[in-house]
Amino acid sequence: MKEFQLIENFFTNRSISRRDVELSIGDDCALVQPALNKSIAISCDTLVENVHFYPDIPPQALGYKSLAVNLSDLASMGAEPAWMTLALTLPDVNEQWLTEFSSGLFDAAEYYGVALIGGDTTRGPRSITITINGQVSTGKALTRGGAKNGDWIYVTGTIGDSALGLDVIRGKRHVDPEHHEYLVNRHYYPTPRVLAGQSLRGLASSAIDLSDGLASDIKHMLKRSQVGAVIDVNRLPISSAVTDSVSKDEALNYALMGGEDYELLFTVPEAQKGALETALANAGVQFTQVGQITTGDSVKLIRDGERFISNNLGFEHFS
Amino acid sequence: MKEFQLIENFFTNRSISRRDVELSIGDDCALVQPALNKSIAISCDTLVENVHFYPDIPPQALGYKSLAVNLSDLASMGAEPAWMTLALTLPDVNEQWLTEFSSGLFDAAEYYGVALIGGDTTRGPRSITITINGQVSTGKALTRGGAKNGDWIYVTGTIGDSALGLDVIRGKRHVDPEHHEYLVNRHYYPTPRVLAGQSLRGLASSAIDLSDGLASDIKHMLKRSQVGAVIDVNRLPISSAVTDSVSKDEALNYALMGGEDYELLFTVPEAQKGALETALANAGVQFTQVGQITTGDSVKLIRDGERFISNNLGFEHFS
Repeated sequence: MKEFQLIENFFTNRSISRRDVELSIGDDCALVQPALNKSIAISCDTLVENVHFYPDIPPQALGYKSLAVNLSDLASMGAEPAWMTLALTLPDVNEQWLTEFSSGLFDAAEYYGVALIGGDTTRGPRSITITINGQVSTGKALTRGGAKNGDWIYVTGTIGDSALGLDVIRGKRHVDPEHHEYLVNRHYYPTPRVLAGQSLRGLASSAIDLSDGLASDIKHMLKRSQVGAVIDVNRLPISSAVTDSVSKDEALNYALMGGEDYELLFTVPEAQKGALETALANAGVQFTQVGQITTGDSVKLIRDGERFISNNLGFEHFS
Repeated sequence: MKEFQLIENFFTNRSISRRDVELSIGDDCALVQPALNKSIAISCDTLVENVHFYPDIPPQALGYKSLAVNLSDLASMGAEPAWMTLALTLPDVNEQWLTEFSSGLFDAAEYYGVALIGGDTTRGPRSITITINGQVSTGKALTRGGAKNGDWIYVTGTIGDSALGLDVIRGKRHVDPEHHEYLVNRHYYPTPRVLAGQSLRGLASSAIDLSDGLASDIKHMLKRSQVGAVIDVNRLPISSAVTDSVSKDEALNYALMGGEDYELLFTVPEAQKGALETALANAGVQFTQVGQITTGDSVKLIRDGERFISNNLGFEHFS
């Protein structure tokens, strides 16, 4: 246990300071001071070795990504990142690994303004659980539950990159050298759309982040909102790295079924469409309208005006 | 993965309602509304199978204890329990196990008024990470850092029960049948001293919960407070279940070195001694004065006026 307590040295006094943190690591609890008239958004994600990541993932990428996936949950609510706890379980104390992991974690934490306020380090099979706290003006959070018939459906950025990136990493696909680094980085270093999410407050009717793939994640939104959707697959924003590397049908499969892009899927009422497009353009966020909310409870995919049946090429998403 | 999502059925819609929970399980984040002029106390503990608990622990006890150890951290700050997230990693989906585990967890959650607002269920080696949130009036939280030379040192309840209980469970000790259930329950179902902690606000100068054993935990307090301590081992509150079952020296070893009692150790300035004793008596909490804060930075154990050298009988604490 003594040796194990050394792990804490990699995380103590490394965090950014925030004025709303009254007491950080080192006591039985941390103490934070929430802002007036804000709600606290809380989310928790666990990454388990051999389930959510391969043992050969660069530790720096794992540290970054462990936080990024949690930040993405805050982004989809339109919340501002604030504080996090880290529960880190490791089979052994490897200083090199810890140096790299903590470096990736704190890079993301600094960039997004998150203070590490506590946690637990334990010996066991490698896994990481981060619980993140953000703040959002009460009543202004985006949820999965507000989409209405007729609302327009958008996604940020491009989708399918991360899944193809993983296939490249695993040696299942070979791509042109000019796309290699981009795709690998999109898998290892996804960009949580924190500013985009904040720009959507008061404009979007609902939002969700894309962790399991558009075809799967949109169903959560439709269920909570009690609506259906039609998606025009020709409109899906797919990077040239993907379209240059695989066939059109394969690209659509990556875009629809590939997970871990951590882009936002959101809906906008017709009346807010102009304001939203202005707000996102001002925030410098790429966004694409891909479909529309309908009545019913299912997702209809169309291409060139015809029903699109995904020919699922046996694509496997790791998680 | 489909099968695994069934786990969520054991936890969704089972939580108590709290008016300050705006949005619970089912979206990307939960939303809670902190009370005015309160700080939020946050703590996080991981329990890993074969490290913090044996595979044969009754699942109900594991569920209860996973929350209790986190509540104990809130107790030592004088905070009121509010919300928690649960990250549960399991090797398989066992309905009987989940029924019992969730029953123990929700028993504790209901009793202490904690709402389960989110979490993550993943496949992997069994472990439980709970991040708990409590509230405490800003500036009123107890910490490890306020003990001053001359303050009196107290502990709640009795200490050493849990460690002897574990030895009984593991078959290393045999005790009289009249004490068996008490000791086992003290190990499996520790009582977090939540009300006692709240009663200490404004009266105690520092507090910590006893998770690793008095001799070890007091050092954290002394370090943060930059003081020393003298403990009269004859004063340590030891239950008749322990004194009836082992020799006097062994009993002292359990009390000093045995972990997982989750009692509170706290310090009180002379001027507050009377008020504190009244407050705790009104709260129905047993408490015992066991020593005094000194200058310096070490713990001195005395017995009958002589320096007490623990003859550490090879006692092993599981965690």
